Amino acid sequence: MSMWQVKQVGQKPVLKSPILIEGLPGIGNVGKVVVDFIIEKMKAKKIYEFISYQLPHSVFVNEKNLVEMPRIEIYYKKFKNRKHDLLFLAGDIQPIDEESCYAFTDKVLDVCRQHKVKEIVTIGGIGLQAIPKKPEVFCTGNSKAIISKYKKGTSLNEKLYGIVGPIVGVTGLLLGLAERRKIPAIALLAETFGHPMYLGVKGAREVLKVLDKKIGLGISLKDLDKEIEGLEKEMLKRTEEFSNISKRSAFKKLKQKLKEETSYIG
Amino acid sequence: MSMWQVKQVGQKPVLKSPILIEGLPGIGNVGKVVVDFIIEKMKAKKIYEFISYQLPHSVFVNEKNLVEMPRIEIYYKKFKNRKHDLLFLAGDIQPIDEESCYAFTDKVLDVCRQHKVKEIVTIGGIGLQAIPKKPEVFCTGNSKAIISKYKKGTSLNEKLYGIVGPIVGVTGLLLGLAERRKIPAIALLAETFGHPMYLGVKGAREVLKVLDKKIGLGISLKDLDKEIEGLEKEMLKRTEEFSNISKRSAFKKLKQKLKEETSYIG
Amino acid sequence: MSMWQVKQVGQKPVLKSPILIEGLPGIGNVGKVVVDFIIEKMKAKKIYEFISYQLPHSVFVNEKNLVEMPRIEIYYKKFKNRKHDLLFLAGDIQPIDEESCYAFTDKVLDVCRQHKVKEIVTIGGIGLQAIPKKPEVFCTGNSKAIISKYKKGTSLNEKLYGIVGPIVGVTGLLLGLAERRKIPAIALLAETFGHPMYLGVKGAREVLKVLDKKIGLGISLKDLDKEIEGLEKEMLKRTEEFSNISKRSAFKKLKQKLKEETSYIG
Amino acid sequence: MSMWQVKQVGQKPVLKSPILIEGLPGIGNVGKVVVDFIIEKMKAKKIYEFISYQLPHSVFVNEKNLVEMPRIEIYYKKFKNRKHDLLFLAGDIQPIDEESCYAFTDKVLDVCRQHKVKEIVTIGGIGLQAIPKKPEVFCTGNSKAIISKYKKGTSLNEKLYGIVGPIVGVTGLLLGLAERRKIPAIALLAETFGHPMYLGVKGAREVLKVLDKKIGLGISLKDLDKEIEGLEKEMLKRTEEFSNISKRSAFKKLKQKLKEETSYIG
Repeated sequence: MSMWQVKQVGQKPVLKSPILIEGLPGIGNVGKVVVDFIIEKMKAKKIYEFISYQLPHSVFVNEKNLVEMPRIEIYYKKFKNRKHDLLFLAGDIQPIDEESCYAFTDKVLDVCRQHKVKEIVTIGGIGLQAIPKKPEVFCTGNSKAIISKYKKGTSLNEKLYGIVGPIVGVTGLLLGLAERRKIPAIALLAETFGHPMYLGVKGAREVLKVLDKKIGLGISLKDLDKEIEGLEKEMLKRTEEFSNISKRSAFKKLKQKLKEETSYIG
Repeated sequence: MSMWQVKQVGQKPVLKSPILIEGLPGIGNVGKVVVDFIIEKMKAKKIYEFISYQLPHSVFVNEKNLVEMPRIEIYYKKFKNRKHDLLFLAGDIQPIDEESCYAFTDKVLDVCRQHKVKEIVTIGGIGLQAIPKKPEVFCTGNSKAIISKYKKGTSLNEKLYGIVGPIVGVTGLLLGLAERRKIPAIALLAETFGHPMYLGVKGAREVLKVLDKKIGLGISLKDLDKEIEGLEKEMLKRTEEFSNISKRSAFKKLKQKLKEETSYIG
Repeated sequence: MSMWQVKQVGQKPVLKSPILIEGLPGIGNVGKVVVDFIIEKMKAKKIYEFISYQLPHSVFVNEKNLVEMPRIEIYYKKFKNRKHDLLFLAGDIQPIDEESCYAFTDKVLDVCRQHKVKEIVTIGGIGLQAIPKKPEVFCTGNSKAIISKYKKGTSLNEKLYGIVGPIVGVTGLLLGLAERRKIPAIALLAETFGHPMYLGVKGAREVLKVLDKKIGLGISLKDLDKEIEGLEKEMLKRTEEFSNISKRSAFKKLKQKLKEETSYIG
Repeated sequence: MSMWQVKQVGQKPVLKSPILIEGLPGIGNVGKVVVDFIIEKMKAKKIYEFISYQLPHSVFVNEKNLVEMPRIEIYYKKFKNRKHDLLFLAGDIQPIDEESCYAFTDKVLDVCRQHKVKEIVTIGGIGLQAIPKKPEVFCTGNSKAIISKYKKGTSLNEKLYGIVGPIVGVTGLLLGLAERRKIPAIALLAETFGHPMYLGVKGAREVLKVLDKKIGLGISLKDLDKEIEGLEKEMLKRTEEFSNISKRSAFKKLKQKLKEETSYIG
């Protein structure tokens, strides 16, 4: 089996020069909060599931007491009167290491090519030492043009150079590898508190405002915070659990390593 | 060589809509205690050996002073007057990492397909902070139907949601991957003491009761505790040793890492 | 995809029995300082890019606020009246582990064979406990002949035996694997301060003097120190960032490992 | 490239039902001391080199100030009037992990099949807490017959069960995998001091006595200790260096991991 397989779910839709929006787990889970929220509100439909051996080797028990495997999926939303349909990359986890992250991102770009994706937007967080009162949203991209386009009419700050280190994982790599395929791509990075258990709702709200202005979500942002919190508590449970299991098994290994050594043959 | 090879031992039997019961090493070794005990008592016959490079690179010395390699095997038991024959997945170890665990579990499911396995039962432990006086057995599965079936007439508790984190390794993954192949699968998870060296005999006894009622083991459970303890002490020695060697070599590596660094060229 | 791919940039030049000079990041970044400086001064042209999944899975933000991926590249410089044209192996990073280092080095040697490379010079540092006042340049190689050739008329010291341990990474492996292909190869190793953030400009200067005498760089070394420092500050930023991100993600993993373990099923 | 390649050196000899003796680095380097000593004394000839990407990615500087790569090799010795010719497996290192150890050992057994190897003897150490005055040599094997054969007329002690844990690396795996190919194999394990830098010369001497009695080395063991010590000091230097470099690079990684984490995007 190759490293990542894409399984189609239902009929493949014909999409009008779609934009892909990525929101996998990461710092403050800003991207996941944003994309899961949009998928829910827009009633976007699942179109692809990613299948791989490069995932946590575990299942979790859902609210129906049934097991579920870790998921990375693509959803879509077709519109009647808009220039761009939408694709969403969402999931419980990120690929487990460098190589599988490259392979996964290339697979996502294969899907993009099939649907003639016009533009890619990735969403992430910038971890601060404290909870920001009014989180700023920074951006970077693989071309000057896409940055100019998204800055127009928004409060996006492009002065990222020197502010942050490398952008790690799919959120970053998707920009770099998209460049090789000539797909314009931008990352929207909201300030958030850099604590593993912090849910970056405020940062997510700011990103949603930018997306609403530039892409047109048609979603009411009133009472957003409360809605998101309710919605995401359940959604994030799964991410947290998968993250915990990694911690636990890793910790287990480390504890074993530190046990006393006895006689040994070699 | 592919990651896992299945080597047939002797003649392949024709099995009547068999049920596969998994019992590899894990928390409290509940699964291993249960399945090794049933194999011994039923005089089940070995049918497959799993061969792989993804195993501890070591051999252990058995009671005859001969070397043995780590083993993962499948046994079977045919019955005259029963609806279901049985297959047992037993062994000294679990696959060493995520990828090899996925590959192994898929290989087991290939075997299941060949023999038209009707149902899968995996057995594990839930590690508690103290030794439980009367261990409860929880269950989860990949369909409501199989859970209902096994709960009927037993004291199985399906309210696992929120009680445990992800189910790790073959015990969990077999449920998730079986769902993709439309094979109903259930996990029976007995409370046990979460200490690496603790032998979860009490939890195993409760699981055996459930299996006896639902599948019909035809095994006397009288004096079970004593029998199991004697039986398993030998069997588990091997598991413990393989686990120890991992500890030792890992510890060795860590110790080396902490040694002082001297001049270095690069 | 195979582990390393070589992507040609522009027209492939015909080179006159070229010498390959390697300068990837390492101790004191002596090799990188030397080779990046020569490429800049000689206006050498890029000819190949190495593409791989065995790289940090991240992008960094450059001074134009655009993302860039980690790079390993080969440049060339043709001369009118010289016996040897030059090839330069330069980049932001080294391959991430043993296997990918072997695979990468063999790929570099495939390129060497194509261009009938006559000789290979690798450049590295020897990490000392303190900043050396007048760094000495040592050498070793895969044949007596190439060592004699480079020692003639220079202050190169070949008495490395017992002075240093193994030479790690591309700087070392390129010598070993070149021997199998019958390509003479020498390593020039300058003393430098073994601190991760130290920029080995003084050592680089001594290596440049040797290269100038033996290969003829035609570069003014006046005001070298100042020039290099300005030039390299920017270049090294990227290397430092990729190194930092590895630190950070590795540290993240370790921190997770040390978190408290809770109940666990297996 | 497959994981391990075997490169033939010179003409392939026709060997009379040969015995393979393995002596790679390990606890006390007992195996390496024994086999390097025999190769030297018998003037055995090199016949195969193992080539792989699964080795330390470094070279070391030898006494001629030239670089050398880490080596694993097979030597042979033909005799005029003996029943068995000899093959020797010797080297600077062991394969780097589980999978490459399995793959390597299978490759060695491919060579054994080609030369119709009759019997395999592996040599290792049992690490004690203190230097043993009169080290005992234990044995285990993959059949009762080979153990009986080697015990006859020697002081070999087969009561290993319960004395040692698993036998790790090529020394152990070669016995287990040889069994699958129906080649009788025995391990001779001498007591030695379990300190990384201790050279198990006394244990090696006892193993040499056993080999001399059973296989007939025709080597004078007079003044053995002194000879071995002089001989091996040089030979072991290389092993120590490769072991050190692993330590150093591993330590480097660990140190980096422990550095402070700063802001992070994901």
